[in-house]
This record gives sequence, C-alpha cells and structure tokens, in this order.
Amino acid sequence: MTEAPRWPLPAMAFGGDWNPDQWPRDVWRHDLELMRRIGVNLVSLPVFAWPQLEPRDGAYSTAWLAEILDALAEAGIGVALATATATPPAWLVRAHPEMLPVRADGVRLGFGSRQSYCPSSEVFRAKVAALTTMMATEFGGHPALRLWHVSNEYGDHVSRCWCDACAAGFRRWLLRRHGSLAGINEAWGTKVWGQVYTDVDQIDPPRVTPGPDNPARLLDFERFSSDNVLDLFRLELDILAELTPGVPRTTNFMGIFRDLDYWRFAAAEDVVSNDAYPDPADGAGHTDIALSYGLMRSLKDRPWLLIESAPSAVSWREVNVPKTPGQLRADALQAVAHGSDGTMFFQWRAARTGPERFHSALLGHRGEASRSFAEAAELGADLAALAPVVGSRVRSSVAIVVDWDTIWALRPDASLPAARSWHDEARRYHAALHSLGLAVDSVDAPGTDLSRYAVIVAPTLYVTTDAQAAALASYVRGGGTLVVGPFSGVVDDRERVHPGGPPGPLRDLLGVEVDEHWPLVDAEAQIVQFASGARTTPHDWAEWIEVADDVDILAHYDGRPLHDRPAITRRSFGDGVAYYISAGLGL
Amino acid sequence: MTEAPRWPLPAMAFGGDWNPDQWPRDVWRHDLELMRRIGVNLVSLPVFAWPQLEPRDGAYSTAWLAEILDALAEAGIGVALATATATPPAWLVRAHPEMLPVRADGVRLGFGSRQSYCPSSEVFRAKVAALTTMMATEFGGHPALRLWHVSNEYGDHVSRCWCDACAAGFRRWLLRRHGSLAGINEAWGTKVWGQVYTDVDQIDPPRVTPGPDNPARLLDFERFSSDNVLDLFRLELDILAELTPGVPRTTNFMGIFRDLDYWRFAAAEDVVSNDAYPDPADGAGHTDIALSYGLMRSLKDRPWLLIESAPSAVSWREVNVPKTPGQLRADALQAVAHGSDGTMFFQWRAARTGPERFHSALLGHRGEASRSFAEAAELGADLAALAPVVGSRVRSSVAIVVDWDTIWALRPDASLPAARSWHDEARRYHAALHSLGLAVDSVDAPGTDLSRYAVIVAPTLYVTTDAQAAALASYVRGGGTLVVGPFSGVVDDRERVHPGGPPGPLRDLLGVEVDEHWPLVDAEAQIVQFASGARTTPHDWAEWIEVADDVDILAHYDGRPLHDRPAITRRSFGDGVAYYISAGLGL
Amino acid sequence: MTEAPRWPLPAMAFGGDWNPDQWPRDVWRHDLELMRRIGVNLVSLPVFAWPQLEPRDGAYSTAWLAEILDALAEAGIGVALATATATPPAWLVRAHPEMLPVRADGVRLGFGSRQSYCPSSEVFRAKVAALTTMMATEFGGHPALRLWHVSNEYGDHVSRCWCDACAAGFRRWLLRRHGSLAGINEAWGTKVWGQVYTDVDQIDPPRVTPGPDNPARLLDFERFSSDNVLDLFRLELDILAELTPGVPRTTNFMGIFRDLDYWRFAAAEDVVSNDAYPDPADGAGHTDIALSYGLMRSLKDRPWLLIESAPSAVSWREVNVPKTPGQLRADALQAVAHGSDGTMFFQWRAARTGPERFHSALLGHRGEASRSFAEAAELGADLAALAPVVGSRVRSSVAIVVDWDTIWALRPDASLPAARSWHDEARRYHAALHSLGLAVDSVDAPGTDLSRYAVIVAPTLYVTTDAQAAALASYVRGGGTLVVGPFSGVVDDRERVHPGGPPGPLRDLLGVEVDEHWPLVDAEAQIVQFASGARTTPHDWAEWIEVADDVDILAHYDGRPLHDRPAITRRSFGDGVAYYISAGLGL
Repeated sequence: MTEAPRWPLPAMAFGGDWNPDQWPRDVWRHDLELMRRIGVNLVSLPVFAWPQLEPRDGAYSTAWLAEILDALAEAGIGVALATATATPPAWLVRAHPEMLPVRADGVRLGFGSRQSYCPSSEVFRAKVAALTTMMATEFGGHPALRLWHVSNEYGDHVSRCWCDACAAGFRRWLLRRHGSLAGINEAWGTKVWGQVYTDVDQIDPPRVTPGPDNPARLLDFERFSSDNVLDLFRLELDILAELTPGVPRTTNFMGIFRDLDYWRFAAAEDVVSNDAYPDPADGAGHTDIALSYGLMRSLKDRPWLLIESAPSAVSWREVNVPKTPGQLRADALQAVAHGSDGTMFFQWRAARTGPERFHSALLGHRGEASRSFAEAAELGADLAALAPVVGSRVRSSVAIVVDWDTIWALRPDASLPAARSWHDEARRYHAALHSLGLAVDSVDAPGTDLSRYAVIVAPTLYVTTDAQAAALASYVRGGGTLVVGPFSGVVDDRERVHPGGPPGPLRDLLGVEVDEHWPLVDAEAQIVQFASGARTTPHDWAEWIEVADDVDILAHYDGRPLHDRPAITRRSFGDGVAYYISAGLGL
Repeated sequence: MTEAPRWPLPAMAFGGDWNPDQWPRDVWRHDLELMRRIGVNLVSLPVFAWPQLEPRDGAYSTAWLAEILDALAEAGIGVALATATATPPAWLVRAHPEMLPVRADGVRLGFGSRQSYCPSSEVFRAKVAALTTMMATEFGGHPALRLWHVSNEYGDHVSRCWCDACAAGFRRWLLRRHGSLAGINEAWGTKVWGQVYTDVDQIDPPRVTPGPDNPARLLDFERFSSDNVLDLFRLELDILAELTPGVPRTTNFMGIFRDLDYWRFAAAEDVVSNDAYPDPADGAGHTDIALSYGLMRSLKDRPWLLIESAPSAVSWREVNVPKTPGQLRADALQAVAHGSDGTMFFQWRAARTGPERFHSALLGHRGEASRSFAEAAELGADLAALAPVVGSRVRSSVAIVVDWDTIWALRPDASLPAARSWHDEARRYHAALHSLGLAVDSVDAPGTDLSRYAVIVAPTLYVTTDAQAAALASYVRGGGTLVVGPFSGVVDDRERVHPGGPPGPLRDLLGVEVDEHWPLVDAEAQIVQFASGARTTPHDWAEWIEVADDVDILAHYDGRPLHDRPAITRRSFGDGVAYYISAGLGL
Repeated sequence: MTEAPRWPLPAMAFGGDWNPDQWPRDVWRHDLELMRRIGVNLVSLPVFAWPQLEPRDGAYSTAWLAEILDALAEAGIGVALATATATPPAWLVRAHPEMLPVRADGVRLGFGSRQSYCPSSEVFRAKVAALTTMMATEFGGHPALRLWHVSNEYGDHVSRCWCDACAAGFRRWLLRRHGSLAGINEAWGTKVWGQVYTDVDQIDPPRVTPGPDNPARLLDFERFSSDNVLDLFRLELDILAELTPGVPRTTNFMGIFRDLDYWRFAAAEDVVSNDAYPDPADGAGHTDIALSYGLMRSLKDRPWLLIESAPSAVSWREVNVPKTPGQLRADALQAVAHGSDGTMFFQWRAARTGPERFHSALLGHRGEASRSFAEAAELGADLAALAPVVGSRVRSSVAIVVDWDTIWALRPDASLPAARSWHDEARRYHAALHSLGLAVDSVDAPGTDLSRYAVIVAPTLYVTTDAQAAALASYVRGGGTLVVGPFSGVVDDRERVHPGGPPGPLRDLLGVEVDEHWPLVDAEAQIVQFASGARTTPHDWAEWIEVADDVDILAHYDGRPLHDRPAITRRSFGDGVAYYISAGLGL
C-alpha cells in the first residue's frame, strides 16, 4: 500500500446502495431530494451495471453514469464508486462459456443469477482489468468520489470452482506452497490409501470421489480458493492504487465469512467495510453479529464501515421477517458502538423486479409513505449528532482467536470424530462474554499483538502450528490468561495429527494430553461437575484427558461415559494462566 | 373445434384401463366375460403399446389390436382409444438420443421408465404425428370407438426440459410474448444484477445458476413449458379432428396439476377427463379432491369423466394404503355427485410386472376372489341405476379463482418473503367451504362469467393483472361478494411489483395498502382477534396493512409482532362487498 | 478349488493392519518389539501400497516390502499378504480416466479417495492381474506368508457403476441369464409402459430416468453388479491358486453387506474373513453384529476370521463414539465365541494423515501410553489362552434365511407397497432369538442342508422361487419348524408377482392367501391380539389375509383397519409346522 488514503468521512456515513439506472430520471431526481432531506451523504453505485457500462465488447458507455455522479456532487452526496465487475454481462459469458464456474460434480453453472464467473478465468480477469482501468480513468477524479467499492461480496455465490483452469491454478499454488511434488506428497500423507502422485498433473481439485477425501487436499483447496479470489481482488486494487493513489479502496465483507480469509483480504485494502444482516427472527442475532463486528474493527485496528444492512426484512432467507419499529435504529447504532463510522443500507429504493424485489429498502414499495422511510429519517438525525466520534476507536480487553485454517479444516466431510464447527463454538464463548457486557476483539495468532488483552479465548483451535502455540505461550508467560476450548492443538497446518496427539504444541502450556475425543450421543447422561458444586451438561462433546501433576482440575465429568475423569483444567505458566475446557459447553 | 362431438355415453361410464396385450388370449377372453358380468361399458387402451404397434421404424403392426377391438365391439363394450404416444419405443430413443429430456443440471435422463421424450423434439413430434395418423386411419371408424384418449397424463414425469431444443423454443416463445429483445429485457427487469441481454441467443432456460434466479425468467419458463406441451397435444388433436371429426377427444388430466394450465388444455379438447387418486391415508383426501372436481366441471362448464381412479391402494406413494371396505364405492359416487358421468379405474387386471405391479386393480392378483372385484360388481349396479342423471349439470354458488400464473410464480425458489403455495391456501379456504356443505366451482378471471356466483374467493392472487382486477371489481360492483386472501395483488404478469406495492390494482377495491409482508416464525404469539370476540392463530403469515377510512376492520392482530394492527377488512364497493384477509388462516 | 489350503493358524490370530511404509524405519522396528511383547502373530499388509510397489507402469519396486516381510518372519509374525490391488495409483487413473466409475446420473467420480476404478475396466483388470502375478511370484514362498488378502472390502465405495463398459457387460450378462432378447423382454415384462426392446444394444443400466424404473431391470442390475465384482475377485483368485496352490486365499467381507452376494463370494475363496464395526453408540450393536457372525460361520461351515475391528472409535460415522474400558475385550471375545479363530484390528498404529487419522488403533496417537494399547495387551493374553479351541465349530439349532435376491429387490425405489428392508426385519427376528440366548446361523435355501435345524426363520422372503419353496416345504415335511414373516412369496426371481398373488409357491405350505398388503400409517391404532390375551402393535405393516380351513389362527388384528381379521397363523404340514406372521412385529 501507498500512504493511507483519506478516510473516514468527516461525518458518520449514512446512505446505501442506489440504482438510479433502474428508474426513470424523474424518479431518481426525486430520490436526490429525499436523500438530502434525511441527511444521506454516501451512496454505493453502480454495483451491477457492467452491461450498461460496456454494452458491447470494448465499447464503453459512461455518459449516463457521469450525469448521475454530477447530480450527486451537486447535491453534496459522496459516492462509494463500484468498479462494476461483480457480474459479467451476458454477451461476455456467451462468448466465453468456459468462464462459467464448475461444481465439484462437474456441472457448469449457467448465466442468470450473478457472479457468473470462475475466479481463475483469464478472459474474465482481462475484462475486469480493462473495466477497472476505464472506471478509474474516467471517474477517478470526480468530485463525488469518496471510496472505491471493488466488485461486490466476493465469494458470495462462487468462491470455489472445480474447472480445469482452477485445477491448473491449484497445481501451481501447491507447488509454491509445498516446494515440490515430493513436498505435496509428504504434506498430504499420500501413502495412506494409495494416493501417491508421481506427476503434479495427476492432482485435481477435490471433485466428487468414491469415498472420503484426503483432508489435507480439502484444506489446501480451501486455502487456494481463498487466495485465488484474493488475486482477483488484488488485480483491481493494484490498478486503482496506480491510477487513483489518493482514493481509498474497499470491498464489502460478509461478517466472519467462511470461505475467505479476511485477515489477508483486509491487509490488501485501505478500508474495512462490511455487510451485516442479523436475522430479526433469531433471538441471538444481535449477540452473534457483535462477534463479527469485533473482527471488523480488529482486521486493521481502525474504524470500519457498515456498508450494507437491511432497513427491515431481507429476501434471501427461507423466512424473511421484518424488523419491528425501532429495530432499524438499534441495529444501526450497535454497529457504530462497535466501531463503524456510519451505517449504510441495501438499498435506497425497493426494486420492482429481480430476486431482491421483496428486500426492504429505505424507500419501500409505498415510497415516502413506507414505515421504513420514517425510521430512516430519524436515524439520519441520530448519525448527524454522532459526528464528533468519527475516527475514534473501540478498545476491548478480551479477544477471540479467529483463524481460517481451523474454520476451513472443520468441514462436515473432513472425517472428524463428529461434526465440529468453529462458528458454533465461537458463538457459544462469545455469547457468554457478551452477556457480561464485554465487547470482544478478534486476534490472529501469530500476526496480532496479543499482549494488550487481559483474556484470550480460543474456542476450538483444531489447526495449531508451532508458531501459534509459541505466540500463545509467550502471551501467557507474560501474564495473559488463555482459555482453550476442546479439539484444539490437534493437527498441524498440513492436517497431520501432532506427534503424541492433541493438544500437540499446546501440551506443555496446558499440561494435558487427550487420549481420545469423546463425542456424546446421549448428552444428558454426561455431567460436568465443578468443584464449586455447579453442574452443567456438555452439548455434544467430551474428551478423555490425562493431566500433569501441577495442573488444577476445576471440574470433573460426572455420569456416563467419563465418570470421575477431569473435564476442565488450569495451569499456571510463567506470569499467566492457561485453562483447558475439554467439554463442549454453552448453549 | 368443429361442432361438439357425441358425448357423453347414454349411460354412466364404467370400466378402466385394460392391457390385454400383456396377457395370453385365454385370460383376456375371460376378462371380457367378467366385464360383461359386472356391467363394464368403457375401457381405455392401448396406452403404452407404441412398441407393439410400431415394432420397427414405420412398420406398423395392428392386427392384434383389431382383434381386441372387434372382441370389445362384440361384447358391447366401448373404447377410449389411446393414441399410444405416451412413451416412445426403445428403438426410437436409441436412434435419437437427443430426444431424451435434460434436467436443469444438464443430466440427460435415460430410457427405462416412461415419457422418455423432450416435448420440443422434432423427431418425436414427427413420429407422434405419424402414429396418430395411422391410428385414426386404421381405427377411426371402428364400432367400439367412443373417445380418443390422447397420449397419457401429459407432464406427469417430464413437463419441463432444459435441453438445447427447448432453449431455442423458449427464445422463440419469448420473442412472441414480449415482441422484441428490448421487450424481454424490460419484462424481466434485467438491469437488476447485470442481466441485460444484447442478443436473444444469450438467453437460456433457467438452468442451475450460482445463486437466485430472475423470477420473471422462472415464470416465463413455466408458461413456455406448459404451452410447449400444449403444442404437442394440439398436434394430435388437429390430426384427429381432421381424420375423425365425429369422435370426441380427451386427454386425462391430473387434478389441479401444477405444471400445466388446464384452462388452455381444456379449451383445446372436446371432453374433460381426469385421474383422481386421493390418498386413503389422508383424512382430508376426500375434501381436497372435491376442489379438483370443481375445476373439472368448470373447465368446460359440462360433464366430465373420472377416467382413472384406484380400486384400492396405488403403488407410487411412499406408503400406499388400501381402501377400507366400501370406500371404493364412496369415492366413485363422490365423483359422480361432482359432475362426472361415470367412474373408471386404473386398472382392470393387476399387472404381474413393472413399477405398477402392486397397484390395486378391479381384478387383483387373486383374480375374481379379490375383495376389490366384489366391490366393483356392486358399483357396476349403482352406476347402471344412475343412467338418468347422465348429462346433467352440478351448479355451485361459490367459486375459487384458479390461476396458473399465481400457481407457478409461487415457486420455492422464487425469492419470496417466505414459502407460499397456492395449493395450500386454496385447500384451506376450500375446506372451510366444503365443511359448510358447499360444492365449489373454479373460475378464471377474466375468462369466466363471474356474475352467476354469490361468492368468489381468491385464496392468494399473487399475480394480478389490471384485467383481472377489473373483472373482480366489476363482479363486486354488480353485487358480488369477493374474499381475497393474503399476498394478493403483489406483482403483474411480468413479476414486477405493482407501483405503490400490494395489493396493486386491487387497492381501490379492497381499500388497503400492504406496507410489509410479515411471515411468522413463532405463529403462536400472533393472534387474530375478531370484533365478535372469536380468536384464531394464523399458520405462518401476517401483514402490516394500512386501511382507508371507509373500510371496516373486522379483526385486529393481537399479541406480537403486529399488536393492534388491522388484520381482516371489509369494504362496500358498488352493490357488493370485498373482504381482505391479511393473515394466513385455516388449518 | 484345489485341496483346502492350510488354515487356520495353530493359535488364535491376533494382530491387525500394519502400514510400516507410512513410518520411518525406527518407528516400525519399534513396532515389531511391541507386537512381540503383546503376542501379535498376524498382520495384514500392504493393502494400499500399489503406488509404492509399481511407481511407474510396469516398473516394480519390492525391496522395501521384502525387508519388512523378512523382519516379520524374523520376529515370528505371520502375514496376511495383500495383493495391494484395492486402489489403483494416480498415474494409472490419469492415463486411463475411462477406468473411473460413473454414477447413475452420468457423473464420473474423481481420484482422491480409494477404489477409484470401474470393476468392468479391462485396463484395470489387466493391471490387477499383472500386480497379483508379481506379488505371487515375488513373495509366494516367503516364510512369513500365511494367507492371501485379496484386494480390500470389495464394493465398499463402488460396487455399482453405470459407465458404458458396464452397460456392455450388463448386456452380455443379461443374454447369458435370459438366453435371448426375447427372454429379457419376457423376464422384465417390458410390455408394461412400452419398454419392449428390439435389439439388445437398446438396453442400458438403470441410469436416472423420468419416473419409476422397471423393478426387474433394477434387480438384474444388482445381480450383474455383484457378479461383476466377483469376476474381478476370481481374476486374482485364479492367479493365486495357480502360482501358490498351498496358500489360502481370502478377501475381507463387511458383514451382511447389501451389495455383494457373499454366498457366491465365499464359494470362490478358501477362508472367510470379515470386518466388523458395531457402533458403540448403538445399544443393539452387539446383538445385530451376532447376526452377521452367524452368516460368516455358515458361509463355508468352517471357522472364520475377524480380520478387522476397531480398538475403540472409528472415523467414518457421523458421530464416532469410543469404546468404554473393557469393551475392546468383550467385542473380541464375542467374535471368537461365534466361531472366529482370532481377532484382528484396524489398525496397529494410528495414522497421522488421511481420512482415517482419527480412527482408533492399538497404538493410539499417544503410542504405548494410549489406553487402547493396555487393553490390547490384555486381550493378547486372553487369546493365547484360547489356543485349544482353534479349529472348533459353533453349532446352532436355529437359522435365518439370508438371500440376496430379496435383499436387493427390497430397494427404496422398487415401487413397493411401502419401504421394506430385509435387514430391518432380519434384525427384529434375530434380536428376539438372541435375547433367548440362541446363536443363529444363516441358510441359503436351496443351497444349504436345512435338516439339521430345529427352526428356520424367513423374516421376509419377498423373492421366492419354486425351488426355494420346495426346499422349505421339504424341510417342514421332514419335521422342521418354519416361521415366515410378512411380504413373502410375493414375486419370482424375475420380479413377477406369483400367479394368484402372495405367498405364491408358499401358499400350500402356509395355507394363506394375501388379498392386500396393508402398510400402516397410524400403527398405534392396529393391535395384534393373541389367543393367549397378549397384545402387541405392528411397527408399520399388516396384511389382509384369507386362510384355509385347516389353519390355526394364533392371533387376530384388533382395532383399525383390519379388525377381527387373522394376523398370525400355523399350519401342520407333514411332520412339521409352518407359521405365517402377516404383521410387522418386533422393535
């Protein structure tokens, strides 16, 4: 990156996605008046307008966009200008059907939704680069421009592709990561089940196979796929950095999105922005969304931007429940309280057509008469009053380890003792901390300075490298408190079980050894009994652990199958203390 | 159509599908004696005998069929003569594998079941025309012939196909419907999500895509697919009309079959016939089947024919429960009471082989000793006694709006606020009317004369055109009573949300505006409270509505989330009255 | 077969799968010491080492294996030597992608798991033959060799393949079985639904079709597929018999594995060996596994070998629960009590990589400190003490009919009155016998000498041939007691319902006729009332039966729908007695 571009805005960002090109001019002119009336100062566009911008190969049409940007500038409203590369036009896809993504079963997906591209496609990348270059050249100096909005929700539909181009890319990536064919065979343990490769061209992405797949292949394919999308992101970022060095760049994240390693994505961009759609029907929605807000403010240790949220119902859940009166405001201010310098919405005016025609908008189908518009107007006043806190930081004393290797490795098809989910475990630990009124940051170990936290929690750290273990041990030695949940320290970053079994490189720190993982089928029968007398029931997981002599046993298992065995331990280590919770606890 | 051919029979039709070609001559000769014994006067054949009729390309073999028809004529039994085009023979499919249908994921279905054809296949259509011509030429004057039974259960297995021939047909159909490529883009709202087409050849049927599809594309594909099968039907109808102008023509419907617009199918044929298989395990089976019988008598406003029903168990459900003693008779007479001029069965004699070997028959595997045969004999006597009512009409004062646009648009993948089903809603309203002892007709608005009904119910009219709204308003203005259920007047026939939101063109008639649809996840918490004090709980749907001043509020929501808001309204309009029920009511 | 080769070992076999090639030499040298310490006398290897044995086409590398075998011989440990053909190497699959198996929907499975081959592939068969020949030539005289372990768990992942090579093989198999094209048409009843074939090349395996498939085609495809794998097995068996006539040959079975007819497989080999993995989470696991042990000792009427079992948890279930202390020993001794001459485990040392890295092992990840190792050492001592019973036979007085035709025909997609499962029914009858302390053999009728059994149970004998019926009648006539469960005698071996309906050729023996099968949806309402006063509730099945005059009715149906009709009957026949249980009983 060059020096940090100018961001944030001097005021709380307020606005949303705007699609004036879908409406007659009199409607969008009226939109501008309404925006000014309620204080909108930032809109995102034109996210999906590639076919309007390039109706024929190489023939750009930008006058309509210039007119809109000029009108925005005149109205004093800024733009998060989309590079419009999120969905390639029909003519491009028809000319190059090989750019459509392919599923693990070999089915090539058709045109007609969005993200109709394989991230590896050279044709697609070339056209993306050309469009981005055009946009930066044409509009990089426009007075309304505040922020580049690169593509849209990378990976929302197609983060993984199993086509031949991806296969070739996967092989190149593997050689880079493991150094040689021998390195790949060693990393993947291919002597098991006769999987030894004698030429790198024999290696495929994990397409459908007769039985269980090699977990190391699965994990490396996750990493490759994330990196592959990141390459696509960087292609645009580099063009923008060169042509418009003073304009900050972002892409809209999607919470703790499983498919992409946002630590790496955030490092490549200037501003972290995020789309958040907690489900109004989920009583824990507000708690859980706070976990992802913690990641957003931690990714770059700077203010972030809630760039998309719903005024009321979304349209892509099985059941899409609206927000009750006042909830729009509460949701928006929660994001600000968690470090966002504004709140933006999808979208300004409700669509009449397409898959999102029932997604709520600041202007619902009833227009200014819509309930949501009245609530939006109130929020505009709230945000204006919050200008003084723009740029300030939210600081937490507690952090959760967020590591995509573990997120990815805990796949349902990874041949684990039982289904495990990092998200489920993290949600449980976070909910407990949240109920104590604690805001919780995210840390990447190693990679983040851990020393500023009083407590660090690793809800489940299935993949644990020596470097991670060393960072955590150093943190505890220096006086930190570490809480490690079950199924941690199990494998290294090549999916190989650590010698001596779990918790592997955390063994000395925790003072425990796991003899066997013990998933529970009759969870009611297994109790965790604390020395204090408190009792709880693990949800679905226990472990048979052996403990070192200097370890305190804080709770035992009671009842079947692990009666009287240790469940929760504590060991002093240097100036700090390390806890191990071998049971799956929390709701 | 030419002048209405001779139908119905002078007596109640009684009989069923007969497959003498699957049995030795002594068996089927004995069948004829048994048929005469119990009064059978009509049999359907040879539904699936294409390979026996045309064992080699263009080489017909009909002597066996002539022998059977002669024997029937001699026995005084009429024939609903099948054109035998329902399943193409193996040799034809092998010679033209491109005539096999293709799924949305690109998998081409194999031979080995039935309906192994794509409705668009030119090769298939040519062979169908040739076979139909041969059948009409050969047997069009046979004395046993009473009715042409065209193909069989169109669309039962393959009403939709995603092959390239269908893609080409879909494009032609789209150009006809929307006039031009610009018309298609406008109708589909392709500016959303960058879907603009610059050449009609870029348009595909809705194959599997990365994410949600365009609802307008989905709906148009439903319409095209129904019309495409109708074209196939008409191909045979036209040949028969020309070669045997005096013989009535039918194809067997399947109740309110989702996939085909039976209003259009019925308009093309002479006699409405229907297959009905209420599930004996379903306590509401008899109620629900009456709804479809109402459609059958309304389609042409004439007597119809129950051409297939089960003597006892079927064989294609997950669990196939037999009928208890007496149920065969009750089921048969219910159809007659609802306007059918007879009852026929699948099938006369139980098969020993094939997927329907466990389907019940008038002669079960135990032959004349079968319980079903004794019950059939009793029914034969019943039907003979009912000859005087042949040709009479059943008249109802209540009707339900049956509209395939709404049926089709409420797809599970149509990005709706929550899953909606016309069938489920219609069943609920119909069950309430049925429990009052009312027979319920079906109406198509516009298209049917509404004025003869005291009450018309639109359980959910998601797609509402201006013409429909005008017809309904005119009906109410003239003194009718209209009941409109939730999620009505939402989109026009291009899947575009009506300006101002629902109920769109019904707004003036009903005097309400829907601010937001409110699917319920905790239905127990939301009560509908009538002014009378009665209370009920919506099953899964509510709406935030705003009402005009002159609207009576008959019931409010009580409890969360819509406490105190109006739920059910009534407005006087002209000489009639219009009700709006915003909640999903009924069981 | 030539004369019976030398087997069993003089002692109880004790050991397991060993993969020294996955570990450094110091580890596996240490393994040998530990094996000797606890009494291991037999190991299986190298099951999946094809790529190590043939790293390039035709270039064998065996020195590493010779070193290991020499070390075993030196340690006094025998080898069940795998032919290593279970999974072809990546280079072979890449060179011949057409050898990969194809699913019913046309998807070709990829490399990356195991069993990556179509059993019909000529290329694969040629390479298998070459490798087996090499192994027999190179190691057939090695002093450690005790037993040939042919391939591995045939059919575990790919027992059925729908590729073109299998289609061709299926056609050849059909012509052999049915004699001619006319014979196939007759056997399959192709006049139903227009399925008549006019050339054998029109016949395909049952790929995905528009609707229900022909049950006779489905059943013949099951038989062909089992025979096809058997051909592959015989290919290796014949080579080994020729090159090493004195060495016994086995392949490891998988209990009463649905996909392969083990009666035919066992007849081809010298020693029956079996893999058994009862689920520790299943309270009935130990009961059910005894049913399969009964098959194992009955297949050749000789001792068998438990060649694979789990020391604790497996890794391929959804939830993999460990064994509690002592359960390893109980499980092992149960197999011995049921006729196994030993107990072996998968595997000796836990893998660090691959899909089975969390499968338990005698040496868990904690090595000698693992709980499982201590338990294994105890078992070694137990087995040593049991040497005197090696070679002895377990004799039962009760047997269950195990017939793969019925197992296969009861497919979920076979258009049955309701889902039926031979395994479920057999488990229920077996559990009742097991709870009486009875060990239960398996019989194949005809094919097994039935006369030595006091009681024979056919839990459900859907497919019943005249020969089977005659064998069972002869058994009863000679004084035997036969218990026949519901849905028996229904079809012949061509899936044709017997004339007169079920129980077809068992009609005289049982004295009953089934008018209709009556699957239950509200099972609670239907009671079976015994003359004794005892009452029970069928789980999901009843029948309307008519009984002959000389039949005793032991129980009636009470309640709906079959009130007062006979449920359980007994008829004296010759010197014996035959029971018919028309209801689905047992838990």
